[in-house]
Amino acid sequence: MIEQKKLSKEQIQRAFEMLQDSICKSLEEADGLGKFKEDTWEREGGGGGKSRIIQGKIIEKGGVNFSAVHGQLPEKIGEALKFPRDSHFFATGVSIVLHPYNPHVPVIHMNVRYFEVMPNQADIAPAWWFGGGIDLTPHYVVKEDAHDFHKQLKAICDLHDPSYYPKFKKWADDYFYLPHREETRGVGGIFFDRLTGDEKLKHFEFVKSVGYGFAPIYTKLMKRNSKKPFSEKEKDWQLHRRGRYVEFNLVWDKGTKFGLDTNGRTESILMSLPSTAKWTYNYEIEKNSAEENTLALLKKGIDWLN
Amino acid sequence: MIEQKKLSKEQIQRAFEMLQDSICKSLEEADGLGKFKEDTWEREGGGGGKSRIIQGKIIEKGGVNFSAVHGQLPEKIGEALKFPRDSHFFATGVSIVLHPYNPHVPVIHMNVRYFEVMPNQADIAPAWWFGGGIDLTPHYVVKEDAHDFHKQLKAICDLHDPSYYPKFKKWADDYFYLPHREETRGVGGIFFDRLTGDEKLKHFEFVKSVGYGFAPIYTKLMKRNSKKPFSEKEKDWQLHRRGRYVEFNLVWDKGTKFGLDTNGRTESILMSLPSTAKWTYNYEIEKNSAEENTLALLKKGIDWLN
Repeated sequence: MIEQKKLSKEQIQRAFEMLQDSICKSLEEADGLGKFKEDTWEREGGGGGKSRIIQGKIIEKGGVNFSAVHGQLPEKIGEALKFPRDSHFFATGVSIVLHPYNPHVPVIHMNVRYFEVMPNQADIAPAWWFGGGIDLTPHYVVKEDAHDFHKQLKAICDLHDPSYYPKFKKWADDYFYLPHREETRGVGGIFFDRLTGDEKLKHFEFVKSVGYGFAPIYTKLMKRNSKKPFSEKEKDWQLHRRGRYVEFNLVWDKGTKFGLDTNGRTESILMSLPSTAKWTYNYEIEKNSAEENTLALLKKGIDWLN
Repeated sequence: MIEQKKLSKEQIQRAFEMLQDSICKSLEEADGLGKFKEDTWEREGGGGGKSRIIQGKIIEKGGVNFSAVHGQLPEKIGEALKFPRDSHFFATGVSIVLHPYNPHVPVIHMNVRYFEVMPNQADIAPAWWFGGGIDLTPHYVVKEDAHDFHKQLKAICDLHDPSYYPKFKKWADDYFYLPHREETRGVGGIFFDRLTGDEKLKHFEFVKSVGYGFAPIYTKLMKRNSKKPFSEKEKDWQLHRRGRYVEFNLVWDKGTKFGLDTNGRTESILMSLPSTAKWTYNYEIEKNSAEENTLALLKKGIDWLN
């Protein structure tokens, strides 16, 4: 077992790289056709990453990205975090978005990350924290799938701390939200940030559990739903829901904003966008349709466990 | 002639409503098939608008919106403009985005607007200003079209003030820019803001000239290019360029941000998004192709007049 004080950023980085490998392997197996293509990249200010993109049979467009970057704290981040300009930072994480072909397979997102700030001034303490989350965006909400998804997330959380699931479930409801549409992005999940303090190892174990929970959770949904037939109308609805996904990521998502503001690698950041999306002015849905039912369930505060 | 001091906000609002009518008429004639559908809407805090959407033969999806809203200054706007919370505001404008079917017809955007702030404190002076702009986003840059477009904008500007075109052309280059792509949105145009001071009538006349210049400029481009044949590859490129348009509007455009931040009418604000857009990770273009040629011309500082 790693001692608390000896848990280094190199160990965290290495764990995230192994997580990326493991997830890519599981997704390739579940897809049955697609193979990840990797681009390695270097960041001008320090560090780099490995972007892996899949175009498969079940997953139309998906990315599983790893990065570990460091250097001088970018100005906008320094302002937001209230650290002086001459601070240094280190950030590593794994970030995933998968857009499936079949509208009955949900979109999924997962991210785990670790951040360190090292001020250059002796009287300012350094800081570190973990963050992350998983959230599910069905084109058509299926209550049983949402229930199952949240049950698994709760099980992962409860292993580490019984207070996590209720807190992080609410955080996800609030975070994955489109105020201009008054809609949640999907059925939520968990979201957490700024996990810090004495128990670094506990946080690290939790974050790894979230990371390793991802593949079994999603591959089950792939298997369960990818062979369901779908109509043209359902495909069209999927493309419009993807439009909402684009709106969330480009307008509200803090990770995307952070990346674009700090001159990150654009193609890696925007791998989260779907291959095709549609917008129709005042898109009309039928009364009592599956689409209307889905919209009614894109609300904060739904207890999916009951 | 209207005296300077007597130019009221009601007159400006009425002029913008007439401009909307005039432009819609010209676009329907040029399209030959599509008819605008109007939605009138009211704003909770005061005022409202008329959103007009066209789906035609040449224009796949287009909107010509008018609005005149007023009330208490929204918090975020107050902060940005440095006016106290209890100020009132009035804003009116016409805003247009047209997405054509044919990839050889460019996307166009035009906006004219008038803004007033009335502080509730006797020691803070009220303020007003005009703003606006036109910019052209060809999927394939045609130098002759870009030249012609800028020549017409320069003629409009020169009628009012010979210093306008060079200033406002540069402003458009800087404004309609995607930093994360290191690309301009298109071949630019003119952009201006905060036109205020003693000569209110002069500014009003200029803004009207810009507004009434729009229809002849764009309908010429519709006629010239809408019958050109295009390949599947060109259509695919168009959908990817539309992806960039979405990125600009949702990530960088201040008007969109203003609207979404201040709880504006979402469907009217996002009428600027195309019906369909595509994203491909690391989209590859052929060497020495028309696509490569276009990318090379999406740069700031090109003098299109020569």
